[in-house]
Amino acid sequence: MKLMRVGPPGQEKPALLDKDGKVRDLSAHVADIGGAAISPEGLQKIATIDLASLPELSVDRIGPCVAGTGKFICIGLNYSDHAAETGATVPPEPVIFMKATSAICGPNDEVRIPRGSEKTDWEVELGVVIGKTAKYVSEADALDYVAGYCVSHDVSERAFQTERAGQWTKGKSCDTFGPIGPWLVTKDEVADPQNLSMWLKVNGETMQDGSSKTMVYGVAFLVSYLSQFMSLHPGDVISTGTPPGVGMGMKPPRYLKDGDTVELAIEGLGTQKQSFKAD
Amino acid sequence: MKLMRVGPPGQEKPALLDKDGKVRDLSAHVADIGGAAISPEGLQKIATIDLASLPELSVDRIGPCVAGTGKFICIGLNYSDHAAETGATVPPEPVIFMKATSAICGPNDEVRIPRGSEKTDWEVELGVVIGKTAKYVSEADALDYVAGYCVSHDVSERAFQTERAGQWTKGKSCDTFGPIGPWLVTKDEVADPQNLSMWLKVNGETMQDGSSKTMVYGVAFLVSYLSQFMSLHPGDVISTGTPPGVGMGMKPPRYLKDGDTVELAIEGLGTQKQSFKAD
Repeated sequence: MKLMRVGPPGQEKPALLDKDGKVRDLSAHVADIGGAAISPEGLQKIATIDLASLPELSVDRIGPCVAGTGKFICIGLNYSDHAAETGATVPPEPVIFMKATSAICGPNDEVRIPRGSEKTDWEVELGVVIGKTAKYVSEADALDYVAGYCVSHDVSERAFQTERAGQWTKGKSCDTFGPIGPWLVTKDEVADPQNLSMWLKVNGETMQDGSSKTMVYGVAFLVSYLSQFMSLHPGDVISTGTPPGVGMGMKPPRYLKDGDTVELAIEGLGTQKQSFKAD
Repeated sequence: MKLMRVGPPGQEKPALLDKDGKVRDLSAHVADIGGAAISPEGLQKIATIDLASLPELSVDRIGPCVAGTGKFICIGLNYSDHAAETGATVPPEPVIFMKATSAICGPNDEVRIPRGSEKTDWEVELGVVIGKTAKYVSEADALDYVAGYCVSHDVSERAFQTERAGQWTKGKSCDTFGPIGPWLVTKDEVADPQNLSMWLKVNGETMQDGSSKTMVYGVAFLVSYLSQFMSLHPGDVISTGTPPGVGMGMKPPRYLKDGDTVELAIEGLGTQKQSFKAD
């Protein structure tokens, strides 16, 4: 299923994209796309609904594909070729950092370049949405705790991230730096999360063109790994790292400026398109 | 006012500690201690309530002093003498990192030492609770966005934080690593947040004995600084760093083990007491 949230910021309705491309209103059945609705039982319940019985929604805006995200966890340097382009080596175990949940926005919302930014950069990433509380879970069981997948744009300000006194959070958490969606695609529709092609274009020019098959630490490993440190809860999002082609890695580096357009997609998970605007 | 939340985890009632030490039930007036209730207008409304008219609550458990925390932001190395004891230098601007909000617990809840931990450490910190959305605010105006203060225990696993491949979040976000409270003390009761004594004891032995007057970057500066990077929202908590005396800084280092008790307090903001238990 392709679950989504449609409407103005903060007033999104839960919805589902059906096989004919119609957006169906799920409000009569679930409060939102998040929490219990994306648990294994919740998803089973949605799967039994007769979609033809649901009203169609007109789509003015698509919101973030999941509500109530308590943690937005990112994995750093998780593609060996991306690590190389940034001058880093692949870490011996996953690098994790947090993006503020207040950075989350819809897949096509305007992204604001913060005041003082000169190095706003792009990163297409596979997002993993947790559906069931996970603590100390094994890699073998880990995917049982995953509701599905989404496109995640880990927008990053490189100077804030690396030149402004320690810890990456500072360059990752700016408002609108976390577009997720358009859909939460349930895991039954994703045959192999480690074999998804993905791309990102800036003003129509291809910058990233990779695949999750070159990920160093895969989805099941990451869910298990993170759950050794902290409980993962329904609605938590893990952004699993980016393939090569970010602006910071170019010679000379290239960054986003007011008026730029970024488009990005992952196979089977949909497309995002954002205008960047200086704050 | 001393606002608090009383009851079992997830079912806390909003309450207020009155001048006679009685805990008064605020449920008839506010949904919770968080969001609109801790805005300047919300706090003004609570201040007009005739406390004698409110039912008394018996207190079996005190919950975290604020609900709906979207961001739990921590400041690293913010006391010059603490920086020295860890072998670090004071950073040229604040080091910020995130603690997972899922780490938040009540001030006297049992703290769980995660599996595989050998370096669980303590840190008494002044917590700042945001009451109004702040974005690009000046240092002069910053305290207008603060609802009040609380004791924050930034429990830290040092090996997870610094020896397990980059970024501190990993050692800061374990479940129960974020006791906050007992009270959210509104800012009108805190004459000077930069002159509060604070202490922490392990099994009755004093380990930290400091004051917020040796903080490098003060509360107003931090709120303004953070708001340049991201919006701060009502209920967000900023943990402002710890004075000297952490286990990591001792020679030899000393860490918490199953059965240890930690007690900590900040002048005017109350006391926390936790038993540590191995997971």
